[in-house]
Amino acid sequence: MAFEPFSKSMLALGQAPSVIRETFEYGNARAKEIGRENVFDFSLGNPSVPAPDSVHTVMRDLMDNTNSVLLHGYTSAVGAEPTRKAIADDINRRFSAGVSASDIYMTCGAAASLTVTLHAILLPGDTCMTFAPFFPEYRVFVEAAGAKLNVVPADTDKFQMNLPVFEARITPETKAVIINTPNNPTGVIYTEENLRAFCEILRKKEAEYGHPIYLIADEPYRELVYDDTAKVPYLVNLYDNTFVCYSFSKSLSLPGERIGYIVVSPKMQENRLVYAAVCGSGRALGFVCAPSLMQRVVAENLGKTSDLAVYKKNRDLLYTNLTKYGYRCIYPDGAFYLWMQALEEDANAFCMKARDYELLLVPSDSFGCKGYVRLAYCVTTEMIERSLPAFEKLAKAYGK
Amino acid sequence: MAFEPFSKSMLALGQAPSVIRETFEYGNARAKEIGRENVFDFSLGNPSVPAPDSVHTVMRDLMDNTNSVLLHGYTSAVGAEPTRKAIADDINRRFSAGVSASDIYMTCGAAASLTVTLHAILLPGDTCMTFAPFFPEYRVFVEAAGAKLNVVPADTDKFQMNLPVFEARITPETKAVIINTPNNPTGVIYTEENLRAFCEILRKKEAEYGHPIYLIADEPYRELVYDDTAKVPYLVNLYDNTFVCYSFSKSLSLPGERIGYIVVSPKMQENRLVYAAVCGSGRALGFVCAPSLMQRVVAENLGKTSDLAVYKKNRDLLYTNLTKYGYRCIYPDGAFYLWMQALEEDANAFCMKARDYELLLVPSDSFGCKGYVRLAYCVTTEMIERSLPAFEKLAKAYGK
Repeated sequence: MAFEPFSKSMLALGQAPSVIRETFEYGNARAKEIGRENVFDFSLGNPSVPAPDSVHTVMRDLMDNTNSVLLHGYTSAVGAEPTRKAIADDINRRFSAGVSASDIYMTCGAAASLTVTLHAILLPGDTCMTFAPFFPEYRVFVEAAGAKLNVVPADTDKFQMNLPVFEARITPETKAVIINTPNNPTGVIYTEENLRAFCEILRKKEAEYGHPIYLIADEPYRELVYDDTAKVPYLVNLYDNTFVCYSFSKSLSLPGERIGYIVVSPKMQENRLVYAAVCGSGRALGFVCAPSLMQRVVAENLGKTSDLAVYKKNRDLLYTNLTKYGYRCIYPDGAFYLWMQALEEDANAFCMKARDYELLLVPSDSFGCKGYVRLAYCVTTEMIERSLPAFEKLAKAYGK
Repeated sequence: MAFEPFSKSMLALGQAPSVIRETFEYGNARAKEIGRENVFDFSLGNPSVPAPDSVHTVMRDLMDNTNSVLLHGYTSAVGAEPTRKAIADDINRRFSAGVSASDIYMTCGAAASLTVTLHAILLPGDTCMTFAPFFPEYRVFVEAAGAKLNVVPADTDKFQMNLPVFEARITPETKAVIINTPNNPTGVIYTEENLRAFCEILRKKEAEYGHPIYLIADEPYRELVYDDTAKVPYLVNLYDNTFVCYSFSKSLSLPGERIGYIVVSPKMQENRLVYAAVCGSGRALGFVCAPSLMQRVVAENLGKTSDLAVYKKNRDLLYTNLTKYGYRCIYPDGAFYLWMQALEEDANAFCMKARDYELLLVPSDSFGCKGYVRLAYCVTTEMIERSLPAFEKLAKAYGK
């Protein structure tokens, strides 16, 4: 092997084009040409509603009443005990999951929750599975941990987990499965029935292979659910070898503040050893002590969310009108994404055509599923209203 | 190889005993028995002075006047452009280093600065060197990046870099060298003469081996310097293939807030490609977008520090008295550590003996150098004053 003066694989990651970023930058350039109000940008999954007032109230109170050295000092590597206790209590109040503070590891956000978990359990030769469509960074994180990602193709009917194919493709090398519900990019919530059948397969395969298969529940969208009938089962209660990777990015509209946590299920096989491996992984990657002020802020804001009503309103407005114009949309129960079938086979070509109408959509290819587009509706309702005629014209251009 | 249900190496890291943590916990237990005021705990390197007032002033101003969605939203993966620009300007004002915003990658603190840098450049088979005594996590970070750490033994005379041994031990596999000045654990600042001779060797070996050897300057203590005569040269100006890994933990007393940055020297060979590898590494490890509020806070506090006068006072008080009692202390120009020779060969035994006088010191073995102890003097001056008789008695117990 030729000497590499630096890591070519990291270079490739650093240089990889991102269709989301490219679309966003195109939107900024276009806004300069024709005015921001004439560009309909649905590309970015950033919360568009402010953090609840109580976030700043708590921050001010902490600055007024807590010693600066304590407030901004290191916490324990795993996170401050009072914060972990408060989170465990909140989880148990809502889900009766039997979680304790010592099962929780505070992290610098959703990406950190995943990388710390994956490095704790994956070794070279291992496989991690996930279900298309999926958040593309899963592949980056799994490969950085030295393992392979095995993607189960989408169930393009309802975009639930495609279990027959999963069962056919799982192998003894499978050590973990990442699932994401409510889902980015589809907005779909996996039904309890689908989840229970999935966990049943996992248990069967654990027995067959004679080793644990970890379920990694990536849950940044847990609180973003719009219908009273929609339920997001807590995986710790359905399957013993479960990690929950959480972030407050979306629920409290704090994506830039990098605060989240990992739950190592109290029922996990060798829970104490696996938790210690999570601690070692956090240490090895440089993730000890999540941001200290934010640890206190989230502990005081458990059970609170940003005002999510605008997301529901946006979803309803988009779904109702786009289906009326003749688009096939998957009904999104949660998150802030709408998943829509492109009006031609090539989603990239469809997105380019949409740009003629100043509609900025993300093609589905990078999510591991061809022929769809993702619309992030974490935007102003008023922008959606202004965009509707453009969607109608685009549909008509395709003969709808 | 037997199937590992999770990573045994991460487990080992998570379970590894830490003499610093053990000492700190012993101190807490002892404080309950005999009262906090009777325990003299010099174990922890946590800032003991508050953040400058301007930190909270800026935070309040941002909360009052910046839209919450912007304030707490994602920045660019590499960090907000205005923050990177402000940092580059500050570096250039102080050191004329020709750094631009595009050479800077914002990180979640010192550990992240190091792990992101190491993963960008190291590959399996590579070696990274450092000089004893050294911060023990360097070994963890280097090995997590798949490389080996090669430690140059200490120059126990002045605790400068031991260059003849370095030159004898460097090999073609050496891809990077981490240096830390002002140094943890010794408090020593490497002289300009020592640094220039070191860089000369690096350049010679680069030519001989035909590949870059990166200098990684770990600089969380850069601002903690107590004598007007002490200078901390900026490595970017002395050696082209330099990374500077910085953190605001100590300068602004914000260790828990996890905010720092990497500088990829503008003069580095293939600077743009290496910077892209740093971006890829941050992405792979889950370190994109450093905490957003703190990015703004540090940008508005460049050139400011906590009130460091107490550290200087503490250093003078300890150094003067301990040398008077007959201890051999290495004069510390910076950081907040005093490095003192143990009064018997085994530093661990010496620290156990010191506990009889309620003195909690950290033995030097974990820093890669036997026979010394580290005293962290980021404590109250009053505690030091109360501790002096105990140090005197301890010296007398050894016949001083």
